[in-house]
Amino acid sequence: MEKIIIRADTLKKFAKDVLMKAGVCEGASECVAEGLVQTSLRGVDSHGIRLLPHYIRGVKGGRINPNPEYRFKKTSPSSGLLDADHTFGHAACIEAARLATGLARDAGTGHVAVYNSTHFGAAAYYALEIARNDMIGIASTNTDALVKTYAGRRAFLGNNPICVAAPCEGEAPFCLDMATSVVTFNKIRQLREDKTRAPEGVGADKDGVETTDPDKITTLLPIGGYKGYGLSLVVEIFCSLLTGMPYGPNIPKMFEASMGTKRMLGQFISAIRIDCFQDAGVFKKRMSALMNELRAEPAMDMDIPVQVAGDPEKRTDRVRSKQGVPLKEAEYAALKDLGKEYRIDLEGL
Amino acid sequence: MEKIIIRADTLKKFAKDVLMKAGVCEGASECVAEGLVQTSLRGVDSHGIRLLPHYIRGVKGGRINPNPEYRFKKTSPSSGLLDADHTFGHAACIEAARLATGLARDAGTGHVAVYNSTHFGAAAYYALEIARNDMIGIASTNTDALVKTYAGRRAFLGNNPICVAAPCEGEAPFCLDMATSVVTFNKIRQLREDKTRAPEGVGADKDGVETTDPDKITTLLPIGGYKGYGLSLVVEIFCSLLTGMPYGPNIPKMFEASMGTKRMLGQFISAIRIDCFQDAGVFKKRMSALMNELRAEPAMDMDIPVQVAGDPEKRTDRVRSKQGVPLKEAEYAALKDLGKEYRIDLEGL
Repeated sequence: MEKIIIRADTLKKFAKDVLMKAGVCEGASECVAEGLVQTSLRGVDSHGIRLLPHYIRGVKGGRINPNPEYRFKKTSPSSGLLDADHTFGHAACIEAARLATGLARDAGTGHVAVYNSTHFGAAAYYALEIARNDMIGIASTNTDALVKTYAGRRAFLGNNPICVAAPCEGEAPFCLDMATSVVTFNKIRQLREDKTRAPEGVGADKDGVETTDPDKITTLLPIGGYKGYGLSLVVEIFCSLLTGMPYGPNIPKMFEASMGTKRMLGQFISAIRIDCFQDAGVFKKRMSALMNELRAEPAMDMDIPVQVAGDPEKRTDRVRSKQGVPLKEAEYAALKDLGKEYRIDLEGL
Repeated sequence: MEKIIIRADTLKKFAKDVLMKAGVCEGASECVAEGLVQTSLRGVDSHGIRLLPHYIRGVKGGRINPNPEYRFKKTSPSSGLLDADHTFGHAACIEAARLATGLARDAGTGHVAVYNSTHFGAAAYYALEIARNDMIGIASTNTDALVKTYAGRRAFLGNNPICVAAPCEGEAPFCLDMATSVVTFNKIRQLREDKTRAPEGVGADKDGVETTDPDKITTLLPIGGYKGYGLSLVVEIFCSLLTGMPYGPNIPKMFEASMGTKRMLGQFISAIRIDCFQDAGVFKKRMSALMNELRAEPAMDMDIPVQVAGDPEKRTDRVRSKQGVPLKEAEYAALKDLGKEYRIDLEGL
C-alpha cells in the first residue's frame, strides 16, 4: 500500500485552519496544530495528526470548549492550579508549561495542576517545551481505565503516561515518554488488523486471563507487574487527586463516551531549573556524554545499536522534517473529508 | 530453621549504641538506627538491620565519615544542595528531607540534591518522613551498574530506586518504593542459596544472554524493557547529574569496592505541599477511598486479594511492631559479634 506523504508545514496550516473554521480560538488552534504535527514528526502517529477528526467531533459535540477562559491561581511561589475550562489539553498544558516555567524562573521550580481538561495528546509536547528553557520538564496525565489491576480481574487505572525531558548539548533534549503498560492499545488494534498474535505478557481478556489473541485482549498488563501498577497509581495521585478530578473508572472514556461528555481529565506539569543545582552548561555537556557512552555500549545484535529514550523519535523527526509525514490512506481520506467540510484544500495549501 | 526474634526498640538501641561506640556522632547514629529498624519492621530485610555490620566496616575503612559537617546551600526559594560530607546516606537524606520540607513550607515545594553521599538504605525512610507533614515525599538515589542496558550486553546504569509516599486518612501513607529492575539482586542470591531457577525475564549472564540459572545471572533486566531502562536514566539525571556526582560504571560498587573508597553517591529528595493544590483533608479522604476501591476490586485468585503499593509493608510493620523482627541465624551471629567487639550485650538491652 502506497503511503501519502504531506509536508509538516502544510499539515500544520491545514490543522490550524480546520480548527479555526470549526470555531476554535486562534491560540488554542495554534497549540493543537503544533502539538499534533510535532508528534507526527516524531513518529508517534497514534497521538499525531490522525486525531484531528476525533477532536473536531469533540468540539462539535460539546465535549471540548473551543473558546476557553483559563483561570490560573498561584498558590505558592512554586505552585499553582489551572482551570482548563474544558478546552483542548494541548492548549491548556502548553499554557501550564509556560506558567510552570515562569514560576521556576522566580522560585527555582514550578508545578502546575491542570483540571477540567481533555486529552492532551503526547506528553512530550509539554516536557520538551519546558526543556527549551534549560529546565527539566515533567508532564503526566490521568487516562481512563485500561490497565489490569495487579492480582485483579479487570482494569481500574489507566496506562497513565509520564514524560521527562532534559536538555543536552548539541542535540535535541533527552525525552522519555512512556505509558505504564507494556504496550499501548493501539498496538493491540494493529495486531488485530494484521491478524498477528500478541507477545506473551502484554494483555488479558475480559476475565483477566492473560492471552496472546489480540481479538480477546481487553485490558493491558502493566510493566513489571505490581511496579507498573504502582507507577500508574502515582500518576493518578498527581493528576486526579492533586487536581481534584475523578479517578480510574470514573473518568469518561475517550472513544466510548458521548462526544458531549466532558472528559474531566487532570494533568500535572513541572519545571525544574537546572542552574539551581548545577551549571546548566556543564549539565548539558554531561547529559550528552552520558548518552553517547550508552550509545557506544556493546550491543547484543550488531544491527540493533544501543539507544537512549527519545532516540527513535529524534531520528524520525529528522527524516520527516525533510521528507514529510506519511499518512495511511484512511487517515488521509479522513483529513480530506474535513477539508471538504470546511472548504480547505489540503493539497492546495 | 528456627528464627531469632528481637524487639524493635532493642534492635534500635543496639544499633545506635554500636554506631556511637564506633565513633559515629549521635545525630547520624540515631538516623541510621531508626532507618534500619523502620526498614526491618516494614519487612524490607535486604535494606534493614542486617546491613549494620557492613556499615560499621565502612566507618572503620574510611568510606563513611562518622562526624560530618553538612553544608547546605539554598539556591532558590524551592531548591538547594546538601553536601553530605561522605557520611551515612540515612543521616544526610533525613537532613535533606527536613530541608525539603522546610523549603516547601515557604515555597510550596522543596527539592534538595544531596552529593558526596553514601548508601541510604530504603528510599521509603525519607519519603515517609516527608509524608508525615501532609506533603507528598519523593526520594531516589543512584546506584552502581547492575541493570542490563536495553539492547546492550552488559550493565551500565544501576537499578536506581524511586519512592513516592502520600498521606492518607486513617492509615499509614501510600508508599511505592521500587527499583527499576524486575527483581533485586538479593532475590537472585536467595535463589542461588535455595538452588531454585529464576523466572524468565529477570536476569542475564555475563554475555547479556537471558538465563534462568541464578548462578549465571550477573545483570538484572529492567521492568518493561526499554521503559525501565529509561526510568533508570531519569533517576540518573536527577541523582548523578543534578548532584554533580559520577554516573553508571563510574560509581564505586557497594560491596566490591574497598571500604576506604568514598561511594560518591547522589540522592534527590522532593517535598510537595498538598494544600498548595487541594485541601489536605479532602485529599487524604480521597486517597483512602481510592485505595479501598482498588482493594475491593475482584481478584483473579480468591486467596490473593488486590493490594496497593505499600500494603505488604504495612501488614508486616503491624505484626513486627508487636512481635519483633525475625533474624536469620547468620544475621543474628553477625550482630552478636558486633556486640562483643563494642561490649554491648544484644540480649541484655
